[in-house]
Amino acid sequence: MEIKASVIGASGYTGIELIRLLNNHPKVEIKQLLSSTYQGQKISQVFPHLAKIVHGRFTNSQISEVAQESDIVFLALPHTKSIEICEELIEHGCKVIDLSADFRINDSEVYTKWYLHPAPKKSLLETAIYGLPEIGLREKISKANLVANPGCYPTATILGLAPLLASQYIDIQNSFLIVDAKSGISGAGRSLKLDSHFCEVSNNFSAYQAGGIHRHIPEIEQELSKLANTPINISFTPHLIPIPRGMLATIYCKLAFKVAEVNELIQLYEDYYKDHFFVRIMSYESKPGVKAVIGSNFCNISLFLDVRNNQLTIISTLDNLLKGASGQAVQNMNLMFKLAEWTGLQAAGIYP
Amino acid sequence: MEIKASVIGASGYTGIELIRLLNNHPKVEIKQLLSSTYQGQKISQVFPHLAKIVHGRFTNSQISEVAQESDIVFLALPHTKSIEICEELIEHGCKVIDLSADFRINDSEVYTKWYLHPAPKKSLLETAIYGLPEIGLREKISKANLVANPGCYPTATILGLAPLLASQYIDIQNSFLIVDAKSGISGAGRSLKLDSHFCEVSNNFSAYQAGGIHRHIPEIEQELSKLANTPINISFTPHLIPIPRGMLATIYCKLAFKVAEVNELIQLYEDYYKDHFFVRIMSYESKPGVKAVIGSNFCNISLFLDVRNNQLTIISTLDNLLKGASGQAVQNMNLMFKLAEWTGLQAAGIYP
Amino acid sequence: MEIKASVIGASGYTGIELIRLLNNHPKVEIKQLLSSTYQGQKISQVFPHLAKIVHGRFTNSQISEVAQESDIVFLALPHTKSIEICEELIEHGCKVIDLSADFRINDSEVYTKWYLHPAPKKSLLETAIYGLPEIGLREKISKANLVANPGCYPTATILGLAPLLASQYIDIQNSFLIVDAKSGISGAGRSLKLDSHFCEVSNNFSAYQAGGIHRHIPEIEQELSKLANTPINISFTPHLIPIPRGMLATIYCKLAFKVAEVNELIQLYEDYYKDHFFVRIMSYESKPGVKAVIGSNFCNISLFLDVRNNQLTIISTLDNLLKGASGQAVQNMNLMFKLAEWTGLQAAGIYP
Amino acid sequence: MEIKASVIGASGYTGIELIRLLNNHPKVEIKQLLSSTYQGQKISQVFPHLAKIVHGRFTNSQISEVAQESDIVFLALPHTKSIEICEELIEHGCKVIDLSADFRINDSEVYTKWYLHPAPKKSLLETAIYGLPEIGLREKISKANLVANPGCYPTATILGLAPLLASQYIDIQNSFLIVDAKSGISGAGRSLKLDSHFCEVSNNFSAYQAGGIHRHIPEIEQELSKLANTPINISFTPHLIPIPRGMLATIYCKLAFKVAEVNELIQLYEDYYKDHFFVRIMSYESKPGVKAVIGSNFCNISLFLDVRNNQLTIISTLDNLLKGASGQAVQNMNLMFKLAEWTGLQAAGIYP
Repeated sequence: MEIKASVIGASGYTGIELIRLLNNHPKVEIKQLLSSTYQGQKISQVFPHLAKIVHGRFTNSQISEVAQESDIVFLALPHTKSIEICEELIEHGCKVIDLSADFRINDSEVYTKWYLHPAPKKSLLETAIYGLPEIGLREKISKANLVANPGCYPTATILGLAPLLASQYIDIQNSFLIVDAKSGISGAGRSLKLDSHFCEVSNNFSAYQAGGIHRHIPEIEQELSKLANTPINISFTPHLIPIPRGMLATIYCKLAFKVAEVNELIQLYEDYYKDHFFVRIMSYESKPGVKAVIGSNFCNISLFLDVRNNQLTIISTLDNLLKGASGQAVQNMNLMFKLAEWTGLQAAGIYP
Repeated sequence: MEIKASVIGASGYTGIELIRLLNNHPKVEIKQLLSSTYQGQKISQVFPHLAKIVHGRFTNSQISEVAQESDIVFLALPHTKSIEICEELIEHGCKVIDLSADFRINDSEVYTKWYLHPAPKKSLLETAIYGLPEIGLREKISKANLVANPGCYPTATILGLAPLLASQYIDIQNSFLIVDAKSGISGAGRSLKLDSHFCEVSNNFSAYQAGGIHRHIPEIEQELSKLANTPINISFTPHLIPIPRGMLATIYCKLAFKVAEVNELIQLYEDYYKDHFFVRIMSYESKPGVKAVIGSNFCNISLFLDVRNNQLTIISTLDNLLKGASGQAVQNMNLMFKLAEWTGLQAAGIYP
Repeated sequence: MEIKASVIGASGYTGIELIRLLNNHPKVEIKQLLSSTYQGQKISQVFPHLAKIVHGRFTNSQISEVAQESDIVFLALPHTKSIEICEELIEHGCKVIDLSADFRINDSEVYTKWYLHPAPKKSLLETAIYGLPEIGLREKISKANLVANPGCYPTATILGLAPLLASQYIDIQNSFLIVDAKSGISGAGRSLKLDSHFCEVSNNFSAYQAGGIHRHIPEIEQELSKLANTPINISFTPHLIPIPRGMLATIYCKLAFKVAEVNELIQLYEDYYKDHFFVRIMSYESKPGVKAVIGSNFCNISLFLDVRNNQLTIISTLDNLLKGASGQAVQNMNLMFKLAEWTGLQAAGIYP
Repeated sequence: MEIKASVIGASGYTGIELIRLLNNHPKVEIKQLLSSTYQGQKISQVFPHLAKIVHGRFTNSQISEVAQESDIVFLALPHTKSIEICEELIEHGCKVIDLSADFRINDSEVYTKWYLHPAPKKSLLETAIYGLPEIGLREKISKANLVANPGCYPTATILGLAPLLASQYIDIQNSFLIVDAKSGISGAGRSLKLDSHFCEVSNNFSAYQAGGIHRHIPEIEQELSKLANTPINISFTPHLIPIPRGMLATIYCKLAFKVAEVNELIQLYEDYYKDHFFVRIMSYESKPGVKAVIGSNFCNISLFLDVRNNQLTIISTLDNLLKGASGQAVQNMNLMFKLAEWTGLQAAGIYP
């Protein structure tokens, strides 16, 4: 049996990465690749790296037609653009993985406040499962018809903090969590803006949306609060690294009680993630970097204990287009179709 | 049946790329990975991107032991270092693919002149097959016990010129061939030198070994001369691009007779390479670049006719660690073991 | 006495570089900086690197007003946009340095063919002096009211070939000149295009406008023909380097007669440029690269003789925004106002 | 009058930057440039960007000779290497600016603990002035014979926090300070290590020495404690950006009382630094980045108030080779010789 899969929004960076992964997946047959920008054009002409590998053309078919031909549809559209399409696909009996933020926020008011757009209708929103298998959601995802694929910053942050929060290791009352996150430029998409101009980005490193205004904040706080079983506030500052792919989050927290050895915490993390292939606890890595995850679906986690302050620094790295977006989506698809989670996702990253 | 494969010199950039490819190959079982630098160390500790993917440690076993355990051994050693090892492996009945230049030069005197080292013994040298299947050598490679894997510059240059030379399209007498080649930094290896220091390379673009002194010149001229059936001289200047991987050669030649339309030449190239998956004639690409081949085993070729001068510009791109080294080696292994040429090499390159 | 200078098109990359140079120039008072995009905005707000250094706002004043306030006006506008403005400024008695191509081509028909636009009116065009002092034009520039500032590719190429052509060292009849040029991305300007998107440029190296169609070809051939006193044809292929600034041209030619020692040619070059501060003959540099010129107004030239083929390879490097554009413009201004050529241009480049 | 200046350790990255600055300084005459690595070699041959600008050769003269010829000597040597040389120079009556850490730590035991080396002798150590004029030390520096030039991370951090700490705006008891710092690669020096290899650095972004072990921590805490008049502990994590120059520190703190408007804090900073040219409060910059300071001696500071948490995020950027090292040293020299602080340091940074 082959899974018939389509992608809507196939010519953005997450869309193109989905094509690469689905094309290489042993159990998937690609059906339709929709792109309003390039409809009718040969895929290999727009993206020459796919010549001789991906045949056919971008389409702009009716949603109903896409639904009919597909077992699953990936939505790789800008935020607020997938709500209606998603509803239609689900009505047609298609499974859907939405890579936008539209179905990630459980509280409609919160969604509207941050995204300035009405939330999806409640009946549908309530069926959406947050697609991060490693925080106890694997079972739910495997039964879901609609998966809200997590954001890249949330994935790096939540995976970095889950074991601690689930075990009450953090002093939530007398401290607060700081997430200093850094992302490669592909996270800003393929559309044209001065902030993505090569001459503005190269030789630069910059912060943006500092001061608690980035839209991933409510998503992160929502999931961390569930894990901690108490409301969690974070301070979050994103930065841009002059590289196309890769994400590193440095997370700072005060421990709730004295921990003498970092090994105690490493053990906690290894236990928490012992059944999860795509999380690697890098206990021995003194210089954790994104190069160790680029091109693969792994999230690497390193722990550093500052005994002077009883403070823990967690460094979480991933490829924003893989575990932070399209790779995670394929992982979720595998679960939804009862395949081994790593099917088609086993390749090592590219180095150097 | 699984091919038992080992790599000697497994911790350099071509060695590490071989590990990535062999590990992902459906018909290969990796046996020994030798590294004198890291012997005894866990592979995933030295190369954290391989954690959870490649298990075991680097070894420094006796060659006889490696030979006994392996059907094929890849030699990824510096020039002049593989000659003795190669002889020993062949005597033990192992197939060998040598990624150094040691078995590429047919004329021992030429080898010694350029590499300042005695050539391999004649009886062995004569059995070595030049590992570039696309220039009529596929059959010979499939029967070889010893393959001299081509250099990266030679692969890009020879593939770019073969159809023209084989068809007498070039005015050899009244012109000469110019190869302006550009390479990513991994071509210079993983050892430490000021020329590979990040601060010296970044924001730089430089030429090196200009004036006809680069060691790839005799290799290129040897193979071009065979194709043209007449001695060929080239002018060759290599340059360094501030990127880790990728190679682009811009080749200039005067045509032997008036060609009115570039399409005539495109057709010539398509015919010449019609049975060769890993060469792509990019007739429609107006901006050929290395990004379209990085991470894949393809060599892309574009042709530009300057009608004012009846001069042809050929642009040939490849990933120096793949089609320029380790990918080509695995392609050759596939042929030697009667597998489809592209087994384990089908993945699209990484983009962006 | 201070020179009152204004810039029209002050917010593009060459405009901004002019501001940096003029602001640092001991004999210049900046009057107006025109930008239609940012008119009315504080310069330091649009370009934060200029905070506390350049005060005031971008304007969009009438040309007549600019003319009245200025001794000299720099036009840093897209091709075909400066013709009318230039005429008006000259009529008002202003000196003008035009950084576009509009006044570089002597033959109006050639201009129109390549730029698809009517040429400037003849009476004005004939007064324009090509602004490359090093090829015997210093005297003329110093008396000019209108200087056509050379293109970046032409500057690198012409400086690389002038001594040879002026001395009949090149076998023009039986050979042809090949210019393989590589440029940093700022050459493509600050406007938004997919080809300048960081994710498309980084890790890439690409050719563009191959096959004799780049607009700098007629400019190069015009000036080389004057130097050689015979019509010169070149084969020219530009490439893009993933760096913001820098240009390297590798030029190939067949020598007209046997030259035994490269030193003979080095001497020729040193003699030719002995009175020209901004050309450096780098006789000892084995790895010429753009890093040695970035941030400075120098053009470095290295020579490599391939004795096997009696062929010379010339490598010419410069900073495309300095000697290739704005630095050259300030050098020309110095000459026009009888200042030492290097006034305000003496700083070493930035390294590393 | 010209200041006679020499540099010991002139061929490292801070040394070379000193040469560039001193050469361009209107009141300085360079005397000796010492390099044990390159002694006797022409400076322009080792560093071709200095051809025609800096003449002469690297020397390896006796310290007494250097002292005799110089009014001031800059020591750009590795930590622990300058102590003896410094003592000798001071004895000879030379002024000294030491760019290493050796004279920055007031407490000899702390120095020995972190640098594993005996501290300088007390009598000399006590005369050393910490060379950060902007925190109330300008007067002392102007009278000093020995200046301990601050580290790059300390400069960025201390300038970012000084106004807050001096005004008791931070809740020191119930919070702690987090400094997430990112540096370009030149900070690691010009010597060869795998961590500076282009292929390891490019496309990477990594943390190092996390967990409170970086040697700049005691220096930062010492100065912050003086400013706050109470012991300050920080959590400090350095990261490497794949760029040659530039530093950005993101600093997180809890405010001691409710602040309603960020403008209140901006005003505080502007007042604190109102007489300091090289600090720029970038109140309007929403995307603070290192590109705005590269090539100049400025430290830019931006403030972001997270009203949800009454938490302040401070972003401080500088060029690690200028305000973080050699530029700061020249600024200190200017003060020591009663010149305007910005003499020779007024040029705008390079952009793009």
